[in-house]
Amino acid sequence: MSPTKKVCILGSGNWGSTAARIIGNNVLKLPDFDDSVKIWVYEEIVGRKKLTEIINTQHENVKYLPGHKLPENVVAVADAAEVVKDATHIVVVIPHQFIQNLLDTIHGNILPNAQAISLIKGIGISSQGMTTMTQIIHRTLTISVSSLSGANIANEIAEEKYCETTIGCSDPDEAIVWRSLFNTSYFQVNCVNDVIGVEFCGALKNIVAVGAGFIDGLGLGNNTKAAIIRIGFLEMRRLAMHISGAQIQDSTFMESCGMADVITTCYGGRNRRLAEEFVKTGKSMPQLEQELLNGQKLQGYLTAGEVHSYINSCGVNDHFPLFTNIYEICYQGKHPRTIFDGLNVDFSRDTLTPSPVT
Amino acid sequence: MSPTKKVCILGSGNWGSTAARIIGNNVLKLPDFDDSVKIWVYEEIVGRKKLTEIINTQHENVKYLPGHKLPENVVAVADAAEVVKDATHIVVVIPHQFIQNLLDTIHGNILPNAQAISLIKGIGISSQGMTTMTQIIHRTLTISVSSLSGANIANEIAEEKYCETTIGCSDPDEAIVWRSLFNTSYFQVNCVNDVIGVEFCGALKNIVAVGAGFIDGLGLGNNTKAAIIRIGFLEMRRLAMHISGAQIQDSTFMESCGMADVITTCYGGRNRRLAEEFVKTGKSMPQLEQELLNGQKLQGYLTAGEVHSYINSCGVNDHFPLFTNIYEICYQGKHPRTIFDGLNVDFSRDTLTPSPVT
Repeated sequence: MSPTKKVCILGSGNWGSTAARIIGNNVLKLPDFDDSVKIWVYEEIVGRKKLTEIINTQHENVKYLPGHKLPENVVAVADAAEVVKDATHIVVVIPHQFIQNLLDTIHGNILPNAQAISLIKGIGISSQGMTTMTQIIHRTLTISVSSLSGANIANEIAEEKYCETTIGCSDPDEAIVWRSLFNTSYFQVNCVNDVIGVEFCGALKNIVAVGAGFIDGLGLGNNTKAAIIRIGFLEMRRLAMHISGAQIQDSTFMESCGMADVITTCYGGRNRRLAEEFVKTGKSMPQLEQELLNGQKLQGYLTAGEVHSYINSCGVNDHFPLFTNIYEICYQGKHPRTIFDGLNVDFSRDTLTPSPVT
Repeated sequence: MSPTKKVCILGSGNWGSTAARIIGNNVLKLPDFDDSVKIWVYEEIVGRKKLTEIINTQHENVKYLPGHKLPENVVAVADAAEVVKDATHIVVVIPHQFIQNLLDTIHGNILPNAQAISLIKGIGISSQGMTTMTQIIHRTLTISVSSLSGANIANEIAEEKYCETTIGCSDPDEAIVWRSLFNTSYFQVNCVNDVIGVEFCGALKNIVAVGAGFIDGLGLGNNTKAAIIRIGFLEMRRLAMHISGAQIQDSTFMESCGMADVITTCYGGRNRRLAEEFVKTGKSMPQLEQELLNGQKLQGYLTAGEVHSYINSCGVNDHFPLFTNIYEICYQGKHPRTIFDGLNVDFSRDTLTPSPVT
């Protein structure tokens, strides 16, 4: 059987390079996939050499995933249009602020039967509602788009430490193929029929992690952190129901992209860490972003602001006391101890009605 | 209004003394409760003095909750029958192996209209099914019995660090009273109509904590631990459904006694710690119990054995790969790395039918 499918990867940061390691190895065992995997690398000079050259000769992304070899069938290319032109399967894994530019570049160069999967964290929420990365990709490219998210700190996966992930895919046959590209003995893939639910979990958990970081900064214990994680998780589910109506499935929250990712992010990760520093140093979030993230935006801080503008415009703040408290601590100077104010909402008797599906 | 109710506490260990601090303060604000709270203390000599005397003069349980004063209206008494004789509300908080002896002592001395609440962790599971502490108490005393469990490491509560707990109570009016005895600004009580579900969560989470300890012992990361917590949590829910049919409510697992307690126990607590030592030292569980717990039994290890005998006799091991792996590692000398074997069970398509309600 000659290969009829070909996968490419758009993005070569820490997570993209980790995905390239997995996919590069997997395609060699999949007869209907071409062995070659092109990966789009935003060209930069690293120690007087082009990063694409380094990857194609040393088979290592020395800048974003140092210490882990990439399979030799992974080929770095600096031109995104060139990367996608013969691909049936497109993996998108770039920072979300660059997505529209990239889509405009590759639009017109993709195969008509191509499919995509988004590994991007982050969704856009405003007073109008929610826009996910798969929706943005689908609107520009008009192809089928799936999502992948989970308790997936990239370096731990590169070290082949066991974990799980979730693929959201609306077509069962497509799901089987995506799973075959990603699943390994140490990276276990579960598929669900809920594309935006998977994305929603991946974005919202960062607000909860900011709350968990406040708890660490206040020097409180395991009980307190578990309470914040539990309440945050329930507010995520409530918000999903309110913002998307029946589009998001409740069971998605029990997958790796839901419960497991919330836990991972509340114990590791930079959202938790910056929030701890916020409490301990008294510095503002923008100041900490400058000092600790080279000016990059902290996802949980951004999302807390977006979610607040949504729930505020809907007048449902009372149903989201934790998200509201985190917003007010981050943006309005309230003391981190106010995180506990009014948290005793009874989630079992839910009087919040879903907004109409947009 | 003269008080018509009186609460007593059976048990004065770390958790019992913490509960006495809360209840002792709360009754002073409850006009229908007598101000005096008798607490049964298993008499022992601490530094040449009786523990009851120390508590009644220094107002501190110097052995089991040092550094935290008890309210002066909490009165230590060495005779359990004396403690219960005029109590309308009995809080039971002793190690579960002593429960039957204690019940035989107080049986015949309690008021006919008394109610009890169990704070005891641990249930009995055999090939015949499950027996909970509230069932044991109810069978002997034939009074109404509720349960309380949550993400509640006692010392953190004594330090008044914010947390939540869950009361399982089948009567809404009784639930309001129990809540008024326990709820404080830092100890938030949610009530559910599911007495044994609350107990079930409190016991089963210890198996998951043993699994989490193995992960720590193996030096794996946050992703892996979150995966084990997620899968363990889902196996707890499956076992609840199988063992008790419709008796246990699914929503109970989202309360503090469920999700939050699993998280707390997998990051703190002695089940996790001993399991980590088990991997690092290669010593057996009974040996570690001798060395680190003065011969006390480790709850998670015990429960893993009991659960295994149940699922084995029902022939449903395949539906509980994590619990089975943890059992085989603890009892049959399998390598801790085998914890990942066969974990990719799809819990969303559940083919396991509940056993008949016993």
